[in-house]
Amino acid sequence: MGGRIRLGMVGGGNDAFIGGVHRIAARLDDRYELVAGALSSTPEKAQASGAALGLAEDRIYDDFKQMAIREARLKNGIEAVSIVTPNHVHFAAAREFLKRGIHVICDKPLTSTMADARRMVKAVADSEALFFLTHNYTGYPMVRQAREMVAGGDLGKIRVVQVEYPQDWLTKQEDFKQAAWRTDPAQSGAGGSTGDIGTHAHNLACFVSGLTVESLAADIQAFVSGRQLDDNAHVLLRFQGGARGMLWCSQVAPGNENALRLRIYGEKGGLEWEQENPNRLWFSPFGAPKQMITRNGAGAGGAAARMSRIPPGHPEGYLEGFANIYSEAAEAIIAHRTGSKPPADVIYPDIHDGLRGMQFVDACVRSSARNAAWVTLPD
Amino acid sequence: MGGRIRLGMVGGGNDAFIGGVHRIAARLDDRYELVAGALSSTPEKAQASGAALGLAEDRIYDDFKQMAIREARLKNGIEAVSIVTPNHVHFAAAREFLKRGIHVICDKPLTSTMADARRMVKAVADSEALFFLTHNYTGYPMVRQAREMVAGGDLGKIRVVQVEYPQDWLTKQEDFKQAAWRTDPAQSGAGGSTGDIGTHAHNLACFVSGLTVESLAADIQAFVSGRQLDDNAHVLLRFQGGARGMLWCSQVAPGNENALRLRIYGEKGGLEWEQENPNRLWFSPFGAPKQMITRNGAGAGGAAARMSRIPPGHPEGYLEGFANIYSEAAEAIIAHRTGSKPPADVIYPDIHDGLRGMQFVDACVRSSARNAAWVTLPD
Amino acid sequence: MGGRIRLGMVGGGNDAFIGGVHRIAARLDDRYELVAGALSSTPEKAQASGAALGLAEDRIYDDFKQMAIREARLKNGIEAVSIVTPNHVHFAAAREFLKRGIHVICDKPLTSTMADARRMVKAVADSEALFFLTHNYTGYPMVRQAREMVAGGDLGKIRVVQVEYPQDWLTKQEDFKQAAWRTDPAQSGAGGSTGDIGTHAHNLACFVSGLTVESLAADIQAFVSGRQLDDNAHVLLRFQGGARGMLWCSQVAPGNENALRLRIYGEKGGLEWEQENPNRLWFSPFGAPKQMITRNGAGAGGAAARMSRIPPGHPEGYLEGFANIYSEAAEAIIAHRTGSKPPADVIYPDIHDGLRGMQFVDACVRSSARNAAWVTLPD
Amino acid sequence: MGGRIRLGMVGGGNDAFIGGVHRIAARLDDRYELVAGALSSTPEKAQASGAALGLAEDRIYDDFKQMAIREARLKNGIEAVSIVTPNHVHFAAAREFLKRGIHVICDKPLTSTMADARRMVKAVADSEALFFLTHNYTGYPMVRQAREMVAGGDLGKIRVVQVEYPQDWLTKQEDFKQAAWRTDPAQSGAGGSTGDIGTHAHNLACFVSGLTVESLAADIQAFVSGRQLDDNAHVLLRFQGGARGMLWCSQVAPGNENALRLRIYGEKGGLEWEQENPNRLWFSPFGAPKQMITRNGAGAGGAAARMSRIPPGHPEGYLEGFANIYSEAAEAIIAHRTGSKPPADVIYPDIHDGLRGMQFVDACVRSSARNAAWVTLPD
Repeated sequence: MGGRIRLGMVGGGNDAFIGGVHRIAARLDDRYELVAGALSSTPEKAQASGAALGLAEDRIYDDFKQMAIREARLKNGIEAVSIVTPNHVHFAAAREFLKRGIHVICDKPLTSTMADARRMVKAVADSEALFFLTHNYTGYPMVRQAREMVAGGDLGKIRVVQVEYPQDWLTKQEDFKQAAWRTDPAQSGAGGSTGDIGTHAHNLACFVSGLTVESLAADIQAFVSGRQLDDNAHVLLRFQGGARGMLWCSQVAPGNENALRLRIYGEKGGLEWEQENPNRLWFSPFGAPKQMITRNGAGAGGAAARMSRIPPGHPEGYLEGFANIYSEAAEAIIAHRTGSKPPADVIYPDIHDGLRGMQFVDACVRSSARNAAWVTLPD
Repeated sequence: MGGRIRLGMVGGGNDAFIGGVHRIAARLDDRYELVAGALSSTPEKAQASGAALGLAEDRIYDDFKQMAIREARLKNGIEAVSIVTPNHVHFAAAREFLKRGIHVICDKPLTSTMADARRMVKAVADSEALFFLTHNYTGYPMVRQAREMVAGGDLGKIRVVQVEYPQDWLTKQEDFKQAAWRTDPAQSGAGGSTGDIGTHAHNLACFVSGLTVESLAADIQAFVSGRQLDDNAHVLLRFQGGARGMLWCSQVAPGNENALRLRIYGEKGGLEWEQENPNRLWFSPFGAPKQMITRNGAGAGGAAARMSRIPPGHPEGYLEGFANIYSEAAEAIIAHRTGSKPPADVIYPDIHDGLRGMQFVDACVRSSARNAAWVTLPD
Repeated sequence: MGGRIRLGMVGGGNDAFIGGVHRIAARLDDRYELVAGALSSTPEKAQASGAALGLAEDRIYDDFKQMAIREARLKNGIEAVSIVTPNHVHFAAAREFLKRGIHVICDKPLTSTMADARRMVKAVADSEALFFLTHNYTGYPMVRQAREMVAGGDLGKIRVVQVEYPQDWLTKQEDFKQAAWRTDPAQSGAGGSTGDIGTHAHNLACFVSGLTVESLAADIQAFVSGRQLDDNAHVLLRFQGGARGMLWCSQVAPGNENALRLRIYGEKGGLEWEQENPNRLWFSPFGAPKQMITRNGAGAGGAAARMSRIPPGHPEGYLEGFANIYSEAAEAIIAHRTGSKPPADVIYPDIHDGLRGMQFVDACVRSSARNAAWVTLPD
Repeated sequence: MGGRIRLGMVGGGNDAFIGGVHRIAARLDDRYELVAGALSSTPEKAQASGAALGLAEDRIYDDFKQMAIREARLKNGIEAVSIVTPNHVHFAAAREFLKRGIHVICDKPLTSTMADARRMVKAVADSEALFFLTHNYTGYPMVRQAREMVAGGDLGKIRVVQVEYPQDWLTKQEDFKQAAWRTDPAQSGAGGSTGDIGTHAHNLACFVSGLTVESLAADIQAFVSGRQLDDNAHVLLRFQGGARGMLWCSQVAPGNENALRLRIYGEKGGLEWEQENPNRLWFSPFGAPKQMITRNGAGAGGAAARMSRIPPGHPEGYLEGFANIYSEAAEAIIAHRTGSKPPADVIYPDIHDGLRGMQFVDACVRSSARNAAWVTLPD
């Protein structure tokens, strides 16, 4: 198959959280090899971080642009780059790689501003390279199972979608790095909880239901005194085709760690899934007992099996779900090497999902500013 | 203590559901004796139902007015009456008893129309008799525990209230009696799911949080073709004092039986409670592990203990919670016999809770008609 | 139907726990009327307790024998008596009523000694009256459901039965009344945890599986220093027909309140049930997803429906399960009035179940004394 | 730190399950690089499997002895080898590497026979190389947390240990490869379920409790007709120091996937943990509400934190737990390079754990053959 995909990384220096996650995700299924990095905007940290990861000295860069230029020229330069910086850097970094034909695997949300988001769409359209957005929850096997069941008609026409993503880590005034940039509009964008986790909830609801949000009405709050970005949001959803829903995201709900939860109800049945116990999917055909479908267990279909590594009852978790995004991207990149298409069952979040996420945040902020008036999302 | 309270019943004939529940609730703690009834508007059924319950022949009535008149004159006539008819009869029946000094224990929602609700408020104000509304979920020991903890400051200032009451029994076109009157505006009132179960959710949220809904924005639906009343509702809530919330009620959510669930989050901690497993209350003090407080177990306080009969681990359920409402009413009625007040810890839903429930339904319907605009609730 | 059954009670004075439970159980379905009592062996307490329950003065007795004699002569004397004393009084009390044709509803375990148990068997055999033992867990609807499914072949031939009943209330040296008699061999009998809760676990396993324990090997302990009776027991079970099992009961397992739990596995599937959340039964047909069958929900059969009062999702609990034993007894007693048999689906624990429970305790104690050697139970 | 550890593998060819798990575990934290393999005893399969993994041609071996000899001579030969064959090959393979100073990471159970187990002990004692046994469940963070709490006295003196490992995959006659060798005494050894999963349960109970099994009484069965090895086992345990326990393992319990569960109770509190939802640990201090301690959440200590990669609420699973064993081994191997000792908090299952596991199986088989008589385990 021509060897592992040569991967670079922008951001993800020593004390970052999500960079380490991306590296594990890339490594887990042995489809990638990390060979270059501009791991920090602080040169000393960039060097130290690269050395700690065992990168060759000449492939540790102080600056992502310099990295894009040089890697594009190297015979065995990187084929893909992971961008794991704060949101406001996503576009500037991605652009450099995209225009040199290097595939981009970008953390979410897409960018910090709508203007950047539109520029990113153009940059992707203008490039031959592929673009992947790590809406990692779509990589969970039982999320794939749920999507397959909805698409297969097991629920009938969808009526109601309830999605929520409560956390509690910002209950009090934040005083640590992870919180700092996430609550700074200049780095994070217009959305706080809506951008950081609301986008995940929105993406998950659409991914599984196969539906698009037509309009929304949002009531967003910053409960912690002095906080500039929302830390809680209540959103009414109207989907194309008539389904209705609610979305709640919060960073101030004590007792919730990463309690992303999706419930979908149709004319024939319902589904329920929780991220904190992700190997189970509840299926409730109307008029019959509720069933617990388990990853790789009886009742699970092909879409989940593709994403599973180990027998039922042995839990796979967040890192495996994340790795599935990387492995789907690997399928697409490998196919791209020979100008072919990946197999039809390969699915990954792309630039359009990224744009929709940005539109979701933008609509929440605008709706809330107008006292929760309905805001229509672009088609 | 002067003997059991002599109780009559209006409605609750042979094939009714809620009448039987009221009778068990009244009997469970041995504080009442059912001695008279106008159990159906159909005379034959009234007679048969009364006989089946072992009522004396001369205290089986065909008509509630006749019952009120005669019982008020009897030496040992009823002291209290339970009204368990469809909603549109509540006011007409209650009025007859109230004006004759007979206490009323009325099923919820208060009435079928706002006009009747206002008349009921006046009738109660004009009467010396007491009025109780069976918002039965407030009778659960762990709901009392939650209220006590919020009032005691365990959660700090409340920020977010999430309440939901999904069911699935009306997922398809209904064809049975329980459904028939609940989906008929003439009998049920302007609200379908909002009136039948949304009022419970609203009441529970307010009861535990100690907060009042200031305004709401509702998006209500009737998903089943031809249905005249809402079977699903999504509601944004703003509470006095700044807390925000969401309320979801549904009768078309397959896999949900009576999944009433309340979650409250404050500056210092959170609480979670579910009706289907009601002997447990989750308490999450911020920065410490989540705790499971059990009815009568270590960590449960006096408010829950007052409402408990048996040791922890032995589940009490819906009927015991309902019986607690009756037993609280009994305390008030016994005190009333001697012109005294019940002990300070006696709590029961009253005419004001009933009015607020009606205002909630009215506001939902009006908001939804105006495309989910905010509607302010009367103070 | 000839009116409510006239009931007396022996034991169950003011500060007793189980007496109050029996009274609620008898009252819940309105099939009984408590009219007489010898509620305590202390005359003052007997009088005070009877008065508090509203018994007529001349039907409050200081002594159960006197009560049996007089009630048997009264025109409307009691038809049945509930015996809710400590174990060592069961036989002496029951005998007096049985020999006068008064039905006996007796708490478990049957007696405190094997000798009394054999005398009780004879007393029942010699009497025309009926004998009921309140192995109350067999009254739970989903336990009936489980039994029906096993009998109907849904599990195939049973291979493995795992049953356990852990509690924690005797983790430390006891210093309160409920504990006092339960840890005193003279009042409780040879078994501590084995008698008090092990008998329930044993009975439940046999009731649901339809199997009889052929032999057992027990390792029992008294972990709390100075305790005379076992507070923990580990038992291997061999059932007639080849199934094998384990039984664990404990009163020193912190975090367990009344965590009675049964799991049964056969060639075709498995069942799991927990007393602390009793409205659910897990059914695992081999090769298909696990199903959650709920009381009165889709998938529940006639045996559970007979025992249910309210819709699915509204929890029934311990008191309703206990009441079901009383209601089954009522069916038998009503039939007995006219010399007929109760309907075929009426099931209640009887003298044989009581004897088997005693044999179970006796076998545990004897096995453990012989270093967990196998002890065969009488056929 | 001198670069990644050079790793070889014996067994784990294309269609094996556990080989792939070991490879992911080795890769996850980037401490190892797989550079050589004798992946199958069938040469064609060994070649194909090695090529598929991207091994250099000259480091794909047909035979583990040849691999040991050559790798020991290479300048950059392997430093460690993972042995993931069926049990009966473990010793022969391990011996070749141990005697050449190559560290061995061996799957469990240690060997297929007691004789081989004793030879393995000697081989390890005679070697300068290290020996690791992949009792992978000891790598779960919350298992480490539990062990730390017991050692720290949070439970007081341990009284009762309940451990179980039910599965259902062998409910029917097996007809696939994974099952074939596991039910063949020549390859698997004397224990079926006892060897495959009972050893895990035994190891986990001892690891967390810090206790050693002194004697046991076992009743083992082969329920499926014609099966040569046990598929279900019921075991009574007596620990040194007076604690008592039960162990159940089964491969014929429908509805159980890999339901390993441990419960430990002491004088002061209890702990409960389940493999299928491994990020949670229940702690029940006697006389206080039960607490749910989560991985990396409030209340979790240093032992769990060392083993965690991501924030609380994001589930880590089986592969991460397995990787923790590899990472602990890496710490020891890296220290060994310089003749030093690993940090004091590094813990891994070693040859003694392996021997104890074999003694456990042997004792179960011997006890059961003597009708569940007590068998004392070597000290």
